[in-house]
Amino acid sequence: MLCEIGNTHYHFKQGGRIWKASVRDTPDLRLEKEETIYTLSVNETALRRLARRYRVFDLEPFINLDTLYFGLGVDRAAACMAVDTGVLVDAGSAITVDIMRDGVHLGGFIYPGLAKFQNMYAQISPRLQRAMNFAVDLESLPQNTGEAISYGVIMPLVSSVKALARNKPIILTGGDGGYFARFFEGSIVDQSLIFKGMEKIIKEF
Amino acid sequence: MLCEIGNTHYHFKQGGRIWKASVRDTPDLRLEKEETIYTLSVNETALRRLARRYRVFDLEPFINLDTLYFGLGVDRAAACMAVDTGVLVDAGSAITVDIMRDGVHLGGFIYPGLAKFQNMYAQISPRLQRAMNFAVDLESLPQNTGEAISYGVIMPLVSSVKALARNKPIILTGGDGGYFARFFEGSIVDQSLIFKGMEKIIKEF
Repeated sequence: MLCEIGNTHYHFKQGGRIWKASVRDTPDLRLEKEETIYTLSVNETALRRLARRYRVFDLEPFINLDTLYFGLGVDRAAACMAVDTGVLVDAGSAITVDIMRDGVHLGGFIYPGLAKFQNMYAQISPRLQRAMNFAVDLESLPQNTGEAISYGVIMPLVSSVKALARNKPIILTGGDGGYFARFFEGSIVDQSLIFKGMEKIIKEF
Repeated sequence: MLCEIGNTHYHFKQGGRIWKASVRDTPDLRLEKEETIYTLSVNETALRRLARRYRVFDLEPFINLDTLYFGLGVDRAAACMAVDTGVLVDAGSAITVDIMRDGVHLGGFIYPGLAKFQNMYAQISPRLQRAMNFAVDLESLPQNTGEAISYGVIMPLVSSVKALARNKPIILTGGDGGYFARFFEGSIVDQSLIFKGMEKIIKEF
C-alpha cells in the first residue's frame, strides 16, 4: 500500500484503487497482518498519526531527482520522477508548476490553490465573494465581477504555464487538476503521478 | 480637494499634494470654510464617516466611461477615464488590470493584492511563509521556496498583462504599482491616475 500525505488529506493506493481520507482522523485501513504502508509526507503530524497505528516505511530518504532546487516538497519530487519531459501542474491546496527536461528538474513555482483564492477575494471585499467559474472564456475580456475573478485566477496561471511549456507536454494532477484540462490543448490528466513516482523509487531500491 | 476612498485608505489630493489616511479614523483636514471634498468611494462606511464631518460631493453619478462591463468599481472607472489607450494595472489590496483602446474600456480582470498573497501562502503551510522578493529573476526558473513564491505571484501577472498589452502602453498605479515597473519595459508609473480621472469628470460637468 502506498500513502502520500498532503496538508489536508491522506492519499492511498492499493492495487488499482486510489482513495483519500482527511488528515484530521487516523484512517481505518484493513491491512494484512504485517503489511507495510510506503509513505511520502509533507505533513509531519499526519505521518506520525499514521505511524502510531500502522507499520510505515517512509520513502523520503530514497527520492532521487536530478535537480538544483533546494527544499523541493517530497510530493513534487515524486511526481517529477514520474515524468521525463514536460510541465507538471499539481493543483491542490497549493498549485505547483514544475518543469522537467530529459529526466532533469529545471525548477518550478508555487501558486495558491483555488479554494485559497476564493477566500482571499472574499477577504478583500464582500463584493468580490464569487465562486470560481471554469467555463470562463479566456479569449474574451471579462465584463463583470464574476468573470473578472475567475479570469483573474485562471488566465495568469494558464498564460505562465503556456509560456514555460512551449512545445513540451502539460501534465495535470491533484484534486483540481482536471478543471484545467480545457485550457491546455493536448494536456494529460493523471491523478496517479505521485504514486507512479513512489513506485519508481521502490523499484530503484 | 479630491478624495478617493478605497477599502483601507482615504487618498487625498489638494493642489499638487497627494496623501493618504486610514479609513479607521475620521481624517483631520484643515479646510477653508464651506470647501467641498469631491469623492469617489468603494467603501460606503468610510464615505459616510467623511460626510459626517465635511461637506462632500460624490462624483460617482457623473462617471462617464464607455464600457460594457457591469459593476466596474468607481476607482477603476475613474482611472480608466484618465487613459486613452493602454493597459492599466492598479496594485492595491486587489490588483485590477483594465484594457483601454481609443477611449473605450474593453474589459479587465481582478488579481489579489500582494499582501493577500503573502497571507494566503502562510495559511497553506508554514513552510510557505515568505516575504515577496521583487528582485526575483523571471528569466530563470525558481530554485528554492522563496523564489518559487515570489515568481509564482509575479510571473503569472506579468505574463498575462504582457499577453494583453501587446504593443499598448502599460500604466502602473496604486500603492504597489511601482514594484512592477522593472518587469514591464517602458511602463509608466502614475500615482495620480484616479485623481486625473476625477478632474476629468469635474471638467465635463
